[in-house]
Amino acid sequence: MPHQELVRDLLAQRRSGFSLPQGLYVDDAIFQAELDAVFATDWLFACNACEIKRPGDFHTLEIGGNSLIVLRDRDGQIRAFHNVCRHRGSRLCLTESGHVNRLVCPYHQWVYELDGRLINARQMPDDFDPAGYGLRPAHVEVICGMIFVSIAEEPPSLERYRAAVTPYIAPHMPDRTKVAFTSTIIEEANWKLVIENNRECYHCSGNHPELLVTLVEFALPDDPAASATFRGLMERSTARWDRLGLPHRPADGGVEFRCIRLPFNEGTTSFTLDGKPGCAKLLADFTEPELGSVRLFRVPNNWNHFLSDQIMHFRVLPLSAHRTAVSTTWLVHEDAVEGVDYDVGRLTAVWLTTNDQDRQLAENNHLGIRSSAYRPGPYAPSEFLLNNFSDWYVAKMEAYAGSPRPVLAAAE
Amino acid sequence: MPHQELVRDLLAQRRSGFSLPQGLYVDDAIFQAELDAVFATDWLFACNACEIKRPGDFHTLEIGGNSLIVLRDRDGQIRAFHNVCRHRGSRLCLTESGHVNRLVCPYHQWVYELDGRLINARQMPDDFDPAGYGLRPAHVEVICGMIFVSIAEEPPSLERYRAAVTPYIAPHMPDRTKVAFTSTIIEEANWKLVIENNRECYHCSGNHPELLVTLVEFALPDDPAASATFRGLMERSTARWDRLGLPHRPADGGVEFRCIRLPFNEGTTSFTLDGKPGCAKLLADFTEPELGSVRLFRVPNNWNHFLSDQIMHFRVLPLSAHRTAVSTTWLVHEDAVEGVDYDVGRLTAVWLTTNDQDRQLAENNHLGIRSSAYRPGPYAPSEFLLNNFSDWYVAKMEAYAGSPRPVLAAAE
Amino acid sequence: MPHQELVRDLLAQRRSGFSLPQGLYVDDAIFQAELDAVFATDWLFACNACEIKRPGDFHTLEIGGNSLIVLRDRDGQIRAFHNVCRHRGSRLCLTESGHVNRLVCPYHQWVYELDGRLINARQMPDDFDPAGYGLRPAHVEVICGMIFVSIAEEPPSLERYRAAVTPYIAPHMPDRTKVAFTSTIIEEANWKLVIENNRECYHCSGNHPELLVTLVEFALPDDPAASATFRGLMERSTARWDRLGLPHRPADGGVEFRCIRLPFNEGTTSFTLDGKPGCAKLLADFTEPELGSVRLFRVPNNWNHFLSDQIMHFRVLPLSAHRTAVSTTWLVHEDAVEGVDYDVGRLTAVWLTTNDQDRQLAENNHLGIRSSAYRPGPYAPSEFLLNNFSDWYVAKMEAYAGSPRPVLAAAE
Repeated sequence: MPHQELVRDLLAQRRSGFSLPQGLYVDDAIFQAELDAVFATDWLFACNACEIKRPGDFHTLEIGGNSLIVLRDRDGQIRAFHNVCRHRGSRLCLTESGHVNRLVCPYHQWVYELDGRLINARQMPDDFDPAGYGLRPAHVEVICGMIFVSIAEEPPSLERYRAAVTPYIAPHMPDRTKVAFTSTIIEEANWKLVIENNRECYHCSGNHPELLVTLVEFALPDDPAASATFRGLMERSTARWDRLGLPHRPADGGVEFRCIRLPFNEGTTSFTLDGKPGCAKLLADFTEPELGSVRLFRVPNNWNHFLSDQIMHFRVLPLSAHRTAVSTTWLVHEDAVEGVDYDVGRLTAVWLTTNDQDRQLAENNHLGIRSSAYRPGPYAPSEFLLNNFSDWYVAKMEAYAGSPRPVLAAAE
Repeated sequence: MPHQELVRDLLAQRRSGFSLPQGLYVDDAIFQAELDAVFATDWLFACNACEIKRPGDFHTLEIGGNSLIVLRDRDGQIRAFHNVCRHRGSRLCLTESGHVNRLVCPYHQWVYELDGRLINARQMPDDFDPAGYGLRPAHVEVICGMIFVSIAEEPPSLERYRAAVTPYIAPHMPDRTKVAFTSTIIEEANWKLVIENNRECYHCSGNHPELLVTLVEFALPDDPAASATFRGLMERSTARWDRLGLPHRPADGGVEFRCIRLPFNEGTTSFTLDGKPGCAKLLADFTEPELGSVRLFRVPNNWNHFLSDQIMHFRVLPLSAHRTAVSTTWLVHEDAVEGVDYDVGRLTAVWLTTNDQDRQLAENNHLGIRSSAYRPGPYAPSEFLLNNFSDWYVAKMEAYAGSPRPVLAAAE
Repeated sequence: MPHQELVRDLLAQRRSGFSLPQGLYVDDAIFQAELDAVFATDWLFACNACEIKRPGDFHTLEIGGNSLIVLRDRDGQIRAFHNVCRHRGSRLCLTESGHVNRLVCPYHQWVYELDGRLINARQMPDDFDPAGYGLRPAHVEVICGMIFVSIAEEPPSLERYRAAVTPYIAPHMPDRTKVAFTSTIIEEANWKLVIENNRECYHCSGNHPELLVTLVEFALPDDPAASATFRGLMERSTARWDRLGLPHRPADGGVEFRCIRLPFNEGTTSFTLDGKPGCAKLLADFTEPELGSVRLFRVPNNWNHFLSDQIMHFRVLPLSAHRTAVSTTWLVHEDAVEGVDYDVGRLTAVWLTTNDQDRQLAENNHLGIRSSAYRPGPYAPSEFLLNNFSDWYVAKMEAYAGSPRPVLAAAE
């Protein structure tokens, strides 16, 4: 466990209610510590069950230098493995997604079953026991179609999360969806700045005109800053959702997750430039488009929207202290027909634009924090979710490195 | 203050009269130490007053990861600030130059007056005191139109420099100039190699045919290596300048700066391919084009030429141990008309070409020094200014890291 | 000697018969140690004598940051020097190959004779003694046209290698060849993975269809896995070579080198897509095309094939822990005429394709080893040469860093 002293020193400088000390955002050694402290101990959102529908369908993802394979086994079960051959370490799957009968290493053709067992290693001697050389597995949990993976030896329980979010998501029937589009962009910014950017809409009015056609800027139904107009919209919306039996009140996710249903702006129902549905065929058996959106996130790496006509998954994967991959996936009803029920350009326009605006904001934030003049600044009240995120992050890092040493004088 | 021991070890290997030990040129840790020891303690040439003429005009520059804003306040005063919002650290100004009414952070629209005060931070709670969150200032001095900035807490005095160079520069009236052209190139070389390249003309005859049409290769009026032709040129030139009341003898700048007026080659008056003026409208109220050039430099990051028809400023900014940005700005009389009095291509041809030749020389120098076979070599007599530069540099680094430990056996 | 403790820790984890521990492949500090431990102590294959036929012909190569010049002196002798001017360290030769009368530094035109003596340093003072500033030499040995260089102070003897391989190579008369083509590719992989890839043909059947038209996959004449077909081919071939007086049995090179003559597949004689000769004019005075190929390698950085119609040299140069340059040179009879006796596209098709396939394999191997899930895996019997290579490598690293500390529990 390297770099623990550095971690402790930086944690000691952290001040609640303020952005984090510089080193936690831009130090390469901190990033290495985070791979162990955060990404090797928790669950990570990987992809959606509908992206690997058939046995042999696979998806790969990379966290730092670690590549994982998520696949569907012959019996329909979803499994995850490290993407590393047990012979000499070659990657097995070289593409982001695909379909295989078995996993065959491209180097020397060692063959693994879809359950990870090594079933053929040609030319190996008689005393070679393939049982000792199965693929190293990762843990998998599937919650309402969302596949989470963990490379921890004993990952924490996801049951509180599962229990809390299922009533919100299940009515949207994610098992009956398909992928309409996927986008991956690279942001030259620390992954925590990408997350922080997502956790507040304080920046929306100055940067996201397309998004604000439909998105309400308030994070809570009882936001004291909210206008009378919003309160009226909220009352009419919740009455409708109560009538339809759709939950909407904030779930109690602590610092781990958030789940709430919020309305779109008056007269709009989906993330499109005109606010009309992006897919004419609604999800599940919905007939009512005005369902607002279930806004979900879970630390450390995903946020999601469940609408009447589409589901959006956002996945954050750290590449280095200074680079982050952000993938967005749009799901629609599995029977929706492209060109008839939906147009990909229309469906994706708002968030492709918004993602790029957020990329620029995160990159400028990262550049500014690299300056020796950077000092942690105070969060606004509307940035309370960032402080929750910092609290969670600091606890993870403390669990790794030990409690910070007390310091007599806090950083300026 | 990291890396002090490494600095001391390398300083102990330095031998006067020789180029510096390898690590001082190519070690990443040394570069980090230099940001503290040199660039955070001294003055840096930033830009020219005529580049930010109106209130709200700004210029940005980057030293290592630190971005600074230089701007003109409403009252005409020039100020400098760290380009870092006090909220969550975003960069404020994203372009190299521009004009603003106030400084508005692109992220959450915190608004700063041109004097750095935070005057609006929307949504912040009532107990938030904006007085504690003004922009972090940098020091500014303006000397004959040259803007110097310092991020030191207490920068050294510039008064000796100001007093010495003003008599040479003032007659060229830099306050009555405008920018004709600016060029920035990136050199894959340590910043000290860029400076060393500028401090000698030993390399000119083998590399700069365009420059040598007009430039005399001798750095001192009494250079013992100078030819009789040069001595005659010098005598006629100084007689003319004495008659016009223009100072020319070398100012005593020690290792800090150099200021001298030297003639161009016989029959030439400016840095053009044919030696004729690059701008027909001369600076100030000059009527005599044969004024040679005031050659100025100051450690660590600038050199300048003041001619009868133009002023040239060269600015060096270190980006890493291995990359350096070199900006060149050509100033002409503010009333000169492009296309009538001057042609930009003609005005800039010699030094754009020369800069690129110097870039190649510095890059090959840097590559060679990376070799384990590199050993510091002896400066030629005509490279005396490089030894001055090394003396200054070593003193700065010693002030940071302490005197070097004595070594029994010098490096080979 | 930095990083010795890290080296010892990693060596302690090495298990014979298995691929190396992760850090030895991908750690930047290990790479720095290897530059000292391996590349600064041993001989490196540089280029071929026929590439620098005339006095003043030179070739440059780079190992890590160290550039070397290999040239032919006026008296015909081949010499090597560090490509670093003794004045201020500039590189002298800026291209990969060329011809010079003397070595003139591009910076200040210091002039060196082809034997490395400094013969002109203009403007230097009278007390400057050029005898102290000759180019720093490297050791050179030429063995059957192959030029080896060493930057060690006292390189090991090459005599065992010379004595062993000369009888195999000399009949191909490498001194009467010329370069038909040279290719350099960059592989994003550690140099040891490039070498390991070359040391086994276990990966051939799954990856190299073009190569396997002609190459037999067996590394030894008595390979127990070999088919009866191969044994018959071997018997007929060795009878032919014995008749022609061409040696073929494996030389005893220990872990240092390998030298053996092996046949091509039945009915094929050269590395072409159809197996027919790539050059109609055979090497030396050969009339018989079915000479198989002398397969040669020597640690750390070369392998070679000597055929009836061509000689191929492969050279590996490490650029960083993660990047390696691989150069391939095709030599044909010096009297062969391009377009008449050989077509470059036809001559090079198989190995240009094979090199690119191997690049992909090495890069995927490197990516997989970067994963925290990588564990050294067992070599197959047909990978015995990799274990030889690891044995040699470990011995080199131990000689540098001291024996590894004993560990109680081996890595998994």
